Amino acid sequence: MSAAHLRGSNLDLGKVAVLGATGAVGREALSILHARGVPAARVVALASQRSAGTSVPYGDDRLVVREAHEAEFRGIDFAILCATADASRRWASVAQTCGATVIDNSSAFRLRDDVPLIVPEVNGDSIGPGHTRIANPNCSTIILLVAMNPIREAFGIAGITVSTYQAVSGAGAAALDELREQAAATLAGQVFKPKVFHEPCAFNVFSHNSRVEPDTGVNGEERKMIEESRKIWGDPNVRITPTCVRVPVFRAHTESVTVTLGRAASETEIRALLSRAPGLRVVDDRAANSFPTTLGASGGDEVMIGRIRPDPSESHIGAGSEPDDAPGRWKSWCFLIVGDQIRKGAALNAVQIAERVVSLRSKS
Amino acid sequence: MSAAHLRGSNLDLGKVAVLGATGAVGREALSILHARGVPAARVVALASQRSAGTSVPYGDDRLVVREAHEAEFRGIDFAILCATADASRRWASVAQTCGATVIDNSSAFRLRDDVPLIVPEVNGDSIGPGHTRIANPNCSTIILLVAMNPIREAFGIAGITVSTYQAVSGAGAAALDELREQAAATLAGQVFKPKVFHEPCAFNVFSHNSRVEPDTGVNGEERKMIEESRKIWGDPNVRITPTCVRVPVFRAHTESVTVTLGRAASETEIRALLSRAPGLRVVDDRAANSFPTTLGASGGDEVMIGRIRPDPSESHIGAGSEPDDAPGRWKSWCFLIVGDQIRKGAALNAVQIAERVVSLRSKS
Repeated sequence: MSAAHLRGSNLDLGKVAVLGATGAVGREALSILHARGVPAARVVALASQRSAGTSVPYGDDRLVVREAHEAEFRGIDFAILCATADASRRWASVAQTCGATVIDNSSAFRLRDDVPLIVPEVNGDSIGPGHTRIANPNCSTIILLVAMNPIREAFGIAGITVSTYQAVSGAGAAALDELREQAAATLAGQVFKPKVFHEPCAFNVFSHNSRVEPDTGVNGEERKMIEESRKIWGDPNVRITPTCVRVPVFRAHTESVTVTLGRAASETEIRALLSRAPGLRVVDDRAANSFPTTLGASGGDEVMIGRIRPDPSESHIGAGSEPDDAPGRWKSWCFLIVGDQIRKGAALNAVQIAERVVSLRSKS
Repeated sequence: MSAAHLRGSNLDLGKVAVLGATGAVGREALSILHARGVPAARVVALASQRSAGTSVPYGDDRLVVREAHEAEFRGIDFAILCATADASRRWASVAQTCGATVIDNSSAFRLRDDVPLIVPEVNGDSIGPGHTRIANPNCSTIILLVAMNPIREAFGIAGITVSTYQAVSGAGAAALDELREQAAATLAGQVFKPKVFHEPCAFNVFSHNSRVEPDTGVNGEERKMIEESRKIWGDPNVRITPTCVRVPVFRAHTESVTVTLGRAASETEIRALLSRAPGLRVVDDRAANSFPTTLGASGGDEVMIGRIRPDPSESHIGAGSEPDDAPGRWKSWCFLIVGDQIRKGAALNAVQIAERVVSLRSKS
């Protein structure tokens, strides 16, 4: 993919407000806007009353954080909401009424029929001229779909089984402190009581902290991956089987994925597809045992994919009974995917949505 | 399962030699023998020349480590080999010739037709009276099969997709130091060059460090899970699709598992089966979000299983086309499994094999 894709082709976003500017995603959004050359004078950092009057970095400058208020949204072209779902429910309509296009990072509107749920590389073209509220999907969903969409377009996808290895920072900046402090305490032989999570996070692996549905046993993160993937792909029948788990890393989510294609593909075809896909980078050197890692993906814009291989259970027992199966072609494939969930999983995707809106409007 | 199962029912193992006594698994084996009441006078701690003359803990006592030598195996009833595959290839025949029954933790003999590969809860009965060399399976395989065997016996298993979250200590005691030192360096803002692993292990997730097959893309750990599961279950057709990954925890391996059964089961049936299975403990409280964790499983004897749920992709799109599917019954199931890979994944399973041998011989 071209660098222009990642840098937004110098599109003019106009005036941008970032709500939740002091949080992990808000800070990242500011950093991305700055890197794209948006002048500080055209960026408004908003937060709750508690943070008003503090300041946040904007390149070498700092922006004074202002309390969210209707007046702050007047004259704003894009309002990027990076706070809670409650805050989004409160401010999205206000910002729209003031004339802003809202890009919402929360889960508040993602499944609403009148709100497009967008990963630009996947369904950016489904943004219509009348859409002034656009939802940014869940981080794990974005990372999965950026990697799997080229395969789906070429061969179809019947089902995905995915296990996640999610960074603590998905739970916000306080979780980063918790991992740091708990790890230091553990190394010093001290006991540390968890505050952010229900389990200790340092040197521990535990099921995702989102609420577990009492009847189905599915947790909130898994439900998002199922429902959001189906909406983004416009396919209510795609089978998604997720297991979401926290691991003690600061940032970047890893996903171990097994995919059943609609029709069989060769390894050459799969590698060629992935190597030219937008927003994706193949990291796959079997001889060097070099594949995507969380440290390698942290801070980066691209989703990394590696461990590209046909499902060994399928390749071992033969080509199966499907008519389009043949030697050297398989319907089941395995991958390891890693993406920075604060960037592509949240802030970067939101900015890319805004850029896509500008690009669409400039054409219409 | 009864406590007698875990404590070995006071079976008299006679005189036991532990080769590799200074390593992570060897030390754990000694700790388990001590906890089972084997007197220090009946235990010989063996290692390479390099470690000879040092000592290792045995309860409150210490055992002097002796250099492995033919004479050391004379009069030994069980030789538990906890060193490298090369050391096993060198010493297994020697120990057998001296009259010992060999329990080998390495991969040296696991796939040999004349060597049974044993998880006592799964195929302990396949040990014959003439077997004097028995292989202990790979840690990830043991943990998976202890959890999945009761389900296989009741409903059959057509296939398993498993993603592992493996502790660094699977790579030995030096890896524990590496995680500790790297984590401390990272917290202090310092850079640390990896020695044990090919990637930094602190606050990082990376594909398993075993060799990757150039043609298939399958790594050594995954290959073990495939081939060993098939041998232990005596089923060359069972489909195993593993992805093996390291995570920054000290001990206990986690496995996210999706299983396709031979025939559909209800949740009540699955839970009942698992709750009475040997060596397994159900940890599954949806309301409290309490499921197996690595810290919870570390140091324990039982494999923990939780996140018990029907595959949401199957339960959502209906009961499927299989004749035995019915409302409330599903053929695809998801689980989270955690086990201490140094204990049940290695040392404990080896001691349990020895106990099973004693038990079988006392009956014949």
